Amino acid sequence: MDRDNILLTPGPLTTTLRTKLAMLKDWGSWDTDFNALTARVRGELLDILHARDSHVLVPLQGSGTFSVEAAVATVVPRDGHLLVLDNGAYCKRMGRLASLMGRRTTIASRSEEAPVDPQELERLLLEDPSISHVGLIHCETGTGIVNPLAEIAEVCERLGRGLIVDAMSSFAALPIDARALRFDALIAASGKCLEGVPGMGFVFIRKAIVDGCAGNSHSLAMDLHDQHAYMERTGQWRFTPPTHVVAALAEALSQYREEGGQAARLARYQANQRVLVEGLAALGLQTFLKPELLSPIILTFRAPEHADYDFKAFYASAKAQGFMLYPGKLTEVETFRVGCIGAIGPKEMQQAVDAIARALQGMGVRAAAA
Amino acid sequence: MDRDNILLTPGPLTTTLRTKLAMLKDWGSWDTDFNALTARVRGELLDILHARDSHVLVPLQGSGTFSVEAAVATVVPRDGHLLVLDNGAYCKRMGRLASLMGRRTTIASRSEEAPVDPQELERLLLEDPSISHVGLIHCETGTGIVNPLAEIAEVCERLGRGLIVDAMSSFAALPIDARALRFDALIAASGKCLEGVPGMGFVFIRKAIVDGCAGNSHSLAMDLHDQHAYMERTGQWRFTPPTHVVAALAEALSQYREEGGQAARLARYQANQRVLVEGLAALGLQTFLKPELLSPIILTFRAPEHADYDFKAFYASAKAQGFMLYPGKLTEVETFRVGCIGAIGPKEMQQAVDAIARALQGMGVRAAAA
Ligand SMILES: Cc1ncc(COP(=O)(O)O)c(C=O)c1O
Ligand SMILES: Cc1ncc(COP(=O)(O)O)c(C=O)c1O
Repeated sequence: MDRDNILLTPGPLTTTLRTKLAMLKDWGSWDTDFNALTARVRGELLDILHARDSHVLVPLQGSGTFSVEAAVATVVPRDGHLLVLDNGAYCKRMGRLASLMGRRTTIASRSEEAPVDPQELERLLLEDPSISHVGLIHCETGTGIVNPLAEIAEVCERLGRGLIVDAMSSFAALPIDARALRFDALIAASGKCLEGVPGMGFVFIRKAIVDGCAGNSHSLAMDLHDQHAYMERTGQWRFTPPTHVVAALAEALSQYREEGGQAARLARYQANQRVLVEGLAALGLQTFLKPELLSPIILTFRAPEHADYDFKAFYASAKAQGFMLYPGKLTEVETFRVGCIGAIGPKEMQQAVDAIARALQGMGVRAAAA
Repeated sequence: MDRDNILLTPGPLTTTLRTKLAMLKDWGSWDTDFNALTARVRGELLDILHARDSHVLVPLQGSGTFSVEAAVATVVPRDGHLLVLDNGAYCKRMGRLASLMGRRTTIASRSEEAPVDPQELERLLLEDPSISHVGLIHCETGTGIVNPLAEIAEVCERLGRGLIVDAMSSFAALPIDARALRFDALIAASGKCLEGVPGMGFVFIRKAIVDGCAGNSHSLAMDLHDQHAYMERTGQWRFTPPTHVVAALAEALSQYREEGGQAARLARYQANQRVLVEGLAALGLQTFLKPELLSPIILTFRAPEHADYDFKAFYASAKAQGFMLYPGKLTEVETFRVGCIGAIGPKEMQQAVDAIARALQGMGVRAAAA
């Protein structure tokens, strides 16, 4: 049998065999053993942000978007007003789901090529005191850009507004310390930098606000206050948990600790990023963002300006060689994306660079170093 | 290593090793191979109900309740009126989520010991023409009772009202034929009688109504019209799918076909039911429902009337012997439940009966045949 292809995508991504083997057992979702597993996962997630004192951790069934929607529904009161700082596709999605559920929503759309601006936020908040909450995407996976979380959190705290952070693609890789910055909700998921399998998200909710969130949600399934209250009372999930996904996440968390936690994970992803950026630069491929704005999560490259370049053929060739690339998400510029995250290291990334070179050659696209 | 405990619970349940082994591969959620897997699963699910001509199949991330909520949100217009026929806990849940999302909801609560009554439904619908939709739980897992789907569907069709069927615990085991009865939406999930792992649900939506459902949902994540339109256009899920859960479901579906489909699965569950009911009757344990109302899905037994009986100790003893029982869900009568579904046959059910006998003896509860 072939080796499985390596996923250079920002979730689902390549997981270790050990993580997948944890799914070879059926857990009773009502049983104390499973409750203990859930409790351990919740505690270890809190530890990653140093948030045991300040936050509760509420897991939720479904994909990451379900947890983003649940966080907004639970944390923003029905008469609240959410300002979304928008420099990419996932920002727009947060704005869309908030307005669809009936929350007053303002979307401040800016260039995708620059981080959102804390000074501008300050100005917007001072201008409009009705804005009760700010929505921020930490790493905007559409381009890979990292937004200035600490500075944004400082403005929100100083001006007394709530902050909701979508840290889906940054959590567990980029440093975030709940002791040093204040946020009302922070969202991530099992299948990103923790290197678990997809199927559940989770939301950190600030202890000081969680009780006041009762009754905000228009949705039963997405009511994180209710999910949390039930879990505190019974140790169980309200509705059937994705037991195998939870078991895989528990095993992924053990490996995360063994690797050395956030610092070690970041260092590995940075090593992946270096191999990738240098390797593709040598092929004449440029990143969409300026070098100082690149993240070790996912990178957007401009497509080669060549008549024979075609993303589908490029993708198919890389796939045939064992690597799954990711399409671009920008409307104005033709791009493709390559994820740096998952259970891979610089060795696999070098293999991917070689495959990309061969794919470009195969299409007759002349790359600079070829 | 010990053999894994057998789950006598109505999902998560015991799955085959072959189903679990299907999770040892990471799929790219954007890739054509995964799209083909999704398409195959959707087609095979339609075949189970003979619904290729009449319905579309929309899968959804999350637990079964997410799909129930999504079905109500998508199918019932914002100015609609849902009548829920209530003879148990899952009926009440459907009513609760519908009213929470703002749909006008009437809950007709009746005894948990009898099926809901089609004649009464007819009367209720004639009395109140504002009722646009009827919500029915096919097998009410709280007690195990089966409600008369065909008769209810006939009334709804004749009186021109929509029907939403929660078939979570009956789908794929009890016969349902979309050619013979009309329903607007029918909901089930991966981790019940299909014997997949939990983590996704799915909704059959009648083709004639699906286009008209655009814009009904207040929720982005739960908008089944949007999920369906996107999937038809791209072959992909809108948001990250639980890839491993989908792969396990595909493998479970292959085994379903190999076993002989719905008739064979029902026959096996009925054999489980016989061994269980006869075995526990010999121990003096009576079912909560009258014999003619029992289903081969899950059975509710009255707890022994004995001072030394304690569910926790009973559960712990059965667990130590390798079997996970399920607590009762009734408020007025002390009961426990035993599921008949999952990758088990009469042999395992006999082992379970023996373990239950030993558990009762161990507690000093004198059972009739002991
Ligand atoms: C920043 C960000 N937010 C939200 C999501 C949505 O997550 P999902 O696709 O699991 O719904 C993603 C997924 O990649 C993401 O990167
Ligand atoms: C009839 C019925 N409806 C709904 C559900 C809810 O499903 P979940 O627990 O997956 O949310 C169940 C679960 O057992 C059920 O049996």
